[in-house]
Amino acid sequence: MDYQGLIEEIREEVRAVLPEGRVSASIPALASVSRDRFGMAVQTLDGGSFHTGDARENFSIQSISKIYTLTLALTFIGESLWQRVGREPSGTAFNSLVQLEHEQGIPRNPFINAGAMVVADIVCSNAADARHALLAFVRERASNPGIGFDVEVANSEALTGYRNRALANFIKSFGNLDNSVDEVLDFYFHQCAIGMNCVDLARSALFLAGRGTCPWSGGQILTPSLAKRVNATMLTCGTYDAAGDFAYRVGLPGKSGIGGGIVALIPDRLALAVWSPGLNDRGNSLAGTLALELFTTKTGISIF
Amino acid sequence: MDYQGLIEEIREEVRAVLPEGRVSASIPALASVSRDRFGMAVQTLDGGSFHTGDARENFSIQSISKIYTLTLALTFIGESLWQRVGREPSGTAFNSLVQLEHEQGIPRNPFINAGAMVVADIVCSNAADARHALLAFVRERASNPGIGFDVEVANSEALTGYRNRALANFIKSFGNLDNSVDEVLDFYFHQCAIGMNCVDLARSALFLAGRGTCPWSGGQILTPSLAKRVNATMLTCGTYDAAGDFAYRVGLPGKSGIGGGIVALIPDRLALAVWSPGLNDRGNSLAGTLALELFTTKTGISIF
Amino acid sequence: MDYQGLIEEIREEVRAVLPEGRVSASIPALASVSRDRFGMAVQTLDGGSFHTGDARENFSIQSISKIYTLTLALTFIGESLWQRVGREPSGTAFNSLVQLEHEQGIPRNPFINAGAMVVADIVCSNAADARHALLAFVRERASNPGIGFDVEVANSEALTGYRNRALANFIKSFGNLDNSVDEVLDFYFHQCAIGMNCVDLARSALFLAGRGTCPWSGGQILTPSLAKRVNATMLTCGTYDAAGDFAYRVGLPGKSGIGGGIVALIPDRLALAVWSPGLNDRGNSLAGTLALELFTTKTGISIF
Amino acid sequence: MDYQGLIEEIREEVRAVLPEGRVSASIPALASVSRDRFGMAVQTLDGGSFHTGDARENFSIQSISKIYTLTLALTFIGESLWQRVGREPSGTAFNSLVQLEHEQGIPRNPFINAGAMVVADIVCSNAADARHALLAFVRERASNPGIGFDVEVANSEALTGYRNRALANFIKSFGNLDNSVDEVLDFYFHQCAIGMNCVDLARSALFLAGRGTCPWSGGQILTPSLAKRVNATMLTCGTYDAAGDFAYRVGLPGKSGIGGGIVALIPDRLALAVWSPGLNDRGNSLAGTLALELFTTKTGISIF
Repeated sequence: MDYQGLIEEIREEVRAVLPEGRVSASIPALASVSRDRFGMAVQTLDGGSFHTGDARENFSIQSISKIYTLTLALTFIGESLWQRVGREPSGTAFNSLVQLEHEQGIPRNPFINAGAMVVADIVCSNAADARHALLAFVRERASNPGIGFDVEVANSEALTGYRNRALANFIKSFGNLDNSVDEVLDFYFHQCAIGMNCVDLARSALFLAGRGTCPWSGGQILTPSLAKRVNATMLTCGTYDAAGDFAYRVGLPGKSGIGGGIVALIPDRLALAVWSPGLNDRGNSLAGTLALELFTTKTGISIF
Repeated sequence: MDYQGLIEEIREEVRAVLPEGRVSASIPALASVSRDRFGMAVQTLDGGSFHTGDARENFSIQSISKIYTLTLALTFIGESLWQRVGREPSGTAFNSLVQLEHEQGIPRNPFINAGAMVVADIVCSNAADARHALLAFVRERASNPGIGFDVEVANSEALTGYRNRALANFIKSFGNLDNSVDEVLDFYFHQCAIGMNCVDLARSALFLAGRGTCPWSGGQILTPSLAKRVNATMLTCGTYDAAGDFAYRVGLPGKSGIGGGIVALIPDRLALAVWSPGLNDRGNSLAGTLALELFTTKTGISIF
Repeated sequence: MDYQGLIEEIREEVRAVLPEGRVSASIPALASVSRDRFGMAVQTLDGGSFHTGDARENFSIQSISKIYTLTLALTFIGESLWQRVGREPSGTAFNSLVQLEHEQGIPRNPFINAGAMVVADIVCSNAADARHALLAFVRERASNPGIGFDVEVANSEALTGYRNRALANFIKSFGNLDNSVDEVLDFYFHQCAIGMNCVDLARSALFLAGRGTCPWSGGQILTPSLAKRVNATMLTCGTYDAAGDFAYRVGLPGKSGIGGGIVALIPDRLALAVWSPGLNDRGNSLAGTLALELFTTKTGISIF
Repeated sequence: MDYQGLIEEIREEVRAVLPEGRVSASIPALASVSRDRFGMAVQTLDGGSFHTGDARENFSIQSISKIYTLTLALTFIGESLWQRVGREPSGTAFNSLVQLEHEQGIPRNPFINAGAMVVADIVCSNAADARHALLAFVRERASNPGIGFDVEVANSEALTGYRNRALANFIKSFGNLDNSVDEVLDFYFHQCAIGMNCVDLARSALFLAGRGTCPWSGGQILTPSLAKRVNATMLTCGTYDAAGDFAYRVGLPGKSGIGGGIVALIPDRLALAVWSPGLNDRGNSLAGTLALELFTTKTGISIF
């Protein structure tokens, strides 16, 4: 298949919607990015690599990092992770806190902020140096030793993240954080502040399309069974309260971040990454979601 | 693949868990079924038909009927259906009513009871005779003209269904039912009271595995795009508050009913149906869910 | 004290706010009343009777009727009533349904609709003819044999009351209604449709200011202890989600209705009734609430 | 009236229920107090002072302190306080966080923890030294310069108060705290850790029974109107989710704390304080609530 031609065609088609997106104003470092940016990359299991637009431009991966920390935590403690975090969609954001209370401090899934904090806590408990372990993991997956934290972004989140601080203290009150709130949040704010580009992202996620095995290193990161399960969790929970709509329109497991990035997978074939900072009203990249929908529609490939 | 040998092997393996299920006591007609029953059927797109155990035994399909009414409603009014019902997972049952209020009478998805009532209302508005249209559709899909309503079950639900009556009146108060509450509920209680067996169910759902086309009649029931979208909705919303767990463990689009039946699909390959009346604590068939998990584990087939 | 001069002065002062109220549009019979109307009546325990404005004009008492049915139910089954309905404020209307679910069908208090339905059910179970018993009670309390139901209002509520029908079915699903939903709702819609005027209302509520004893008949309707307790419940729960604000501003036990009436009490002294159909954003009479606030401010009388 | 005889009689009568209470285990310093303790004090506006049992024993006043901080904040900024905190009962504790979200960071009333934090923030903003100002105020009201903070209790709450820290960060995220979370919580934990006894408490609250004027200093602390309003808020919101039951059974404005103390008022007559550390299932002193109920029943005095 001519993936290069395809993604260039898609890039043309999404151009018209770029002005409709709304860039996240949650922190200054995100708010300053232009919504005209768009990049897309495809990495196939058989070694093909394709990209277009701003696919080499670094951006803040934000919640996409939750894939990496979930994988790391599963390599550390395996399926016992599910005793501390669920794997069900969370329904409306509106109910997130009440659900946490109703379910006694067990977050609904590892991709809502509360769940990602519990996962971060597990990484903090099991890695000698959590930040270092995460960067090493991501650099190796992406074959890019230059990947790092955007310290300005991390500090900015630490200064203004009252709601995340509320959440972490709330989980701690139920006894579902082993480390201190400050330690968990420091790691959490750093994981969200990793800077990567679309090419990095598509490469780094390829092991999830490849039944858990990283194609260039040949290393088995997760068992095929666990890789399949991470993908299932991404599909049902990866795009917040738009998971149903994303499955409906795109039909692939994916994970989005408010920096405007989205990673998606076609099992046994390829990994995709898109970036466009303008968000839709569900908090996912507007042009990015459309680009993925066009990709599955034009290729006829979907998991359904 | 030796599907016959496989499902017989699975039948042996699930025997041990049969006594752990809890048969639904919601209405007498369901409560009287023995939890020792187990049936399983596979229908492949290329014409293979396999079944074991009680696969020829009729049971009350209950919520599995929501696949048929959603399909019918989509054939009537197409994607405009989504203006009246969402396609997002609902989170906990606990929040269902408050979500309905928060979202102004738009149910979260077509597979929760509230959403199925809106879908039933659409069928009532567009079919000359809703009950007749539904039976005709199901009989044709299953190639079994003997399929009918279990009137005792329908009457039993009508007599005791106070919570469903509350729900229908609540939706009506938001103006999201066009027909009278009594008419919608009468149809809804009948759709849940259809009696079918595993062989019927697997045959009837095959068009969803076949990109919308029914293999024996050759008729296109839904466009490939809509068929894919119904499957995506089943995966994210088809098993109530266990959709994430079902995706995680089974990894297939599926729809369950409290009568103990589950239908699942492997796109482009086959449809599966299992029945065992003992439920797990999420309200899905205990042995049925396990049988499907064994099926995907043993075959290595999953959509992820 | 010159109550006549006082209420005439108040009537002048509230005139300016009359155009700011919003008349309830819930049913046509209520929506057609002019918001320029204002009436006020005072009935003292020592026999004084004062009124001004439209105090002789009949209107739909709506939720004020809940005082009478609660009193009747207490005379029938005493404090065992509290096993079926609570006596705590309900918080926001928004949460009413979820609270009902959380508390397993026990409504928070007898003055929210759900609680009033349980009280209505108790009256239906204990009176030979519930409607007749209620009218007889109210006529006797007000010394006005002409009081009756406004049948047009009752029918109108029966036709459009989907939300109340949802509520009644929901309570029934928890087993907290002994009579049929239709029977309870028929009585409930009639109790809300009683037509009375301010003079009637002030007279009828005087027994609650008089430690349970009706001054002209000399009859003891409730024990002093129960009368005090009904008053306490009115103060904490009588004006929906504005009970705190009403206590803060007016400082008296009171009960409002969406027809624009409010009854209030000064224990050991007098009963008050006001009517003005324009409502504030909490659903209580705008000019009526202001009139009561002026009454306690000008007289310096309050229970606090 | 023979108040001394009365409270001694009450003390005898409540003795039997002392073993039924459950001492708060929220922090070690509270958990170590024996549930056999009981004290009661009455202070009349005309100078009478009566006490019995452990009425001279110091205990942690906890949430009773919210009366003092509310009064202080009202003296600083008057009724504009109500732009930042509501005055409605909060419904179930279960819903507290979701209500805070629903109402955009405006706590329901000044007596739930969230509301008390906003009040604490107002005191921090307006007093040169918040802790000092509060102690000075309480010492003067109680005519006892020996009143102080129990530092062990304050530190204990600071160490374990994850839920309060969650709450403060959550309010801060809505912009409804001007000072830092740490500063507000430090003051909040100290106000709860004030040690007082029943005699102190009854004396200190007397200005609220006296229309805002402190009888011995003759100073007007609040205007009569504001004093009445604080009392109304205590009645509707002072005993958490048991405000309706407390009004029903006791019939007086009151404020409780999990240390087992309760302060209550009879306007124009007297202030009461009780202490017994065993709590009922609503978190109010079991024997204390009963003692107040006996007091109003035996004297026939109530505001209703």
